[in-house]
Amino acid sequence: MTYLDHAATTPVLPEVLAAVTEQMGRVGNASSLHAGGRAARRAAEQARERLAEALGARPSEVLFTGGGTESDNLALKGLFWARREADARRRRLVVSPAEHHAVLDSAEWLAKHEGAEVTWLRLEPSGRVTPEALTEALGDGSDVAVASVMWANNEIGTVSGVAALAEAAHAAGVPLHTDAVQAVGQVPVDFAASGADALTLTGHKLGGPMGAGALLLRRDAECTPLLHGGGQERDVRSGTLDVPVIVGLAVAAGAAVAGREERAGRLAALRDRLVAGVLEQVPDAQLNGAPLDDVVAGGPGRLPGNAHLSFPGAEGDALLMLLDARGIECSTGSACSAGVARPSHVLTAVGAGAARARSSLRFSLGHTSTGADVDALLAVIGPVVERARRAGMGRR
Amino acid sequence: MTYLDHAATTPVLPEVLAAVTEQMGRVGNASSLHAGGRAARRAAEQARERLAEALGARPSEVLFTGGGTESDNLALKGLFWARREADARRRRLVVSPAEHHAVLDSAEWLAKHEGAEVTWLRLEPSGRVTPEALTEALGDGSDVAVASVMWANNEIGTVSGVAALAEAAHAAGVPLHTDAVQAVGQVPVDFAASGADALTLTGHKLGGPMGAGALLLRRDAECTPLLHGGGQERDVRSGTLDVPVIVGLAVAAGAAVAGREERAGRLAALRDRLVAGVLEQVPDAQLNGAPLDDVVAGGPGRLPGNAHLSFPGAEGDALLMLLDARGIECSTGSACSAGVARPSHVLTAVGAGAARARSSLRFSLGHTSTGADVDALLAVIGPVVERARRAGMGRR
Repeated sequence: MTYLDHAATTPVLPEVLAAVTEQMGRVGNASSLHAGGRAARRAAEQARERLAEALGARPSEVLFTGGGTESDNLALKGLFWARREADARRRRLVVSPAEHHAVLDSAEWLAKHEGAEVTWLRLEPSGRVTPEALTEALGDGSDVAVASVMWANNEIGTVSGVAALAEAAHAAGVPLHTDAVQAVGQVPVDFAASGADALTLTGHKLGGPMGAGALLLRRDAECTPLLHGGGQERDVRSGTLDVPVIVGLAVAAGAAVAGREERAGRLAALRDRLVAGVLEQVPDAQLNGAPLDDVVAGGPGRLPGNAHLSFPGAEGDALLMLLDARGIECSTGSACSAGVARPSHVLTAVGAGAARARSSLRFSLGHTSTGADVDALLAVIGPVVERARRAGMGRR
Repeated sequence: MTYLDHAATTPVLPEVLAAVTEQMGRVGNASSLHAGGRAARRAAEQARERLAEALGARPSEVLFTGGGTESDNLALKGLFWARREADARRRRLVVSPAEHHAVLDSAEWLAKHEGAEVTWLRLEPSGRVTPEALTEALGDGSDVAVASVMWANNEIGTVSGVAALAEAAHAAGVPLHTDAVQAVGQVPVDFAASGADALTLTGHKLGGPMGAGALLLRRDAECTPLLHGGGQERDVRSGTLDVPVIVGLAVAAGAAVAGREERAGRLAALRDRLVAGVLEQVPDAQLNGAPLDDVVAGGPGRLPGNAHLSFPGAEGDALLMLLDARGIECSTGSACSAGVARPSHVLTAVGAGAARARSSLRFSLGHTSTGADVDALLAVIGPVVERARRAGMGRR
């Protein structure tokens, strides 16, 4: 099997599996006061410190959640509610239209249900939001509850200049949330240095377990809970601390960040060969997103493991299935849309048009990727595209 | 170590640990369309069927969540929002004051923030809500969004007659949510037979993993999502399906339900001996909740593994720490209040008074409990209570 879908989920690291399994064998609720409870609490707090250190955050800024979707919902809704409660004029959400659905749909729900108003940010053709576009959308900021721009796009891999965006947001007195689910372990992510007020991450995109996420949240950011109850996690996120996966998340983040530079170089080289090879066999294929060698704020402007291509005249779904039948696993875009076939909102947002959006595939590399994976794809992509094109013509 | 805190969390079953570990070793997002994704989806759907079968539900009624707190929040807030949107008069929540904080605090947040009004149900001294009390509180029901009464209380172990409560709720045209976190695997729980519209359960109270819960939700119950995004779980709960713990949850629920009758008999006998032994050594200790042999709707009226006692003149916290120092782990009430020492809201709600509430301990037995655990407690409880009483007097 050739797995080229690491952006959907990536294999769990052996050391993570060992850590999770070991902790699952222990008994104790981290809120219990007895020795077993205190040991569980200690394990969670060590994980919090480890995760914070890997990401340039303070331990008290780490709120453990059930994953990226929950963190995004908590950031959008929680910051909106808290800031509007403090000042009723703050009804506006300023959001990139290329965000993950967890952000988009939260914003749209707030608009439909809670009286919010959404201002969609203007995108560069690469999918990037410039600080100027953010400044323009924020205006004087007095009516804005929160701005949200993802650190790296999950479909086309475009990386944001988060520090400049945070600066623009703060100049208007607005907190910035950034979904860094795809960025952590792929590009340098330092919470303090970024200036962001809230940052979403999740375990299963970086070799950690599923069901383990975090929202990094500045101490001075007021955030209304989404989950009420026992008052865990600074009273912002209730629920029994899931210590086994929290421990696993910290191990994974530590490993992903420590090995980032070496891995990023290796993956970028593989990815560049993949793109070049595909373009050689399918000369009219089009690379979506930022150029492969793009740079933002001194770092990579595109995720090193991301290749996102459109194949004019072929349906993405057909390509995916034809490749799958040949043992190659990839995606038409995000895996997070529950199998519903829709043209990618990201490509639509960057003005690619529905036809191009529908004809695209995402190949995403990760920690287990090798040259053999690229070879396997290149061995079949030409005939596969040809066959998908014939099928598409037959249908018309 | 003598673990008498199974109601806080209970050891993971070996077969669950094996199932979770095995699934964690596989790669694939259940929303991905390729073979790896489809295999993950298949594992999740098999788990859904298995869980549904164990609980008398249809597979399509199972919504996987991150745990009990999330399920409770989703039920309260989701049903409130959806029913109020359908009819603006439905602003009222009818709730037992002995609920878990995940229900209580959700209700209070809805009242404070979303225009809800909470009617607190009258309790019997055992902590039980009678159908008559529910009927009285509902009135003609036209202004009620949702009623919530837990299946079994997490502190004092009182079991509800859920079917009669559901009947009373439906007579007033109101859906009933029940938090069955402590009930599943302890007393017979059949979702269809109960008539409840929504039911909360969680894995780590029944030998499953943490971070794995479900809300059983009737197909005709409209529920606004708490987590927006990819549209998983009938579009009511977005987020990548956490397949490893979902598989583990199903294995645990299957085992807990299959072994329930045998285990319940064994635990009730141990628990009865524990209570008798404590009362022999501390004659003025008081059993809280329903009598040990209580019956409701033909089944046990008290959780078989629950012993909740007050020790007049001793502080619960002091007792807990003295027992912990002797290797015995128990709780002053719920573990879910993040270590904050407050008199139990449950005992307060049944009219026990703050002094009695503060002097209480919960001993909860579970699948690994043995007669040796009871012996260990009985060997020390007399002197421990005496010492705690002396300490309390010294402080005054």
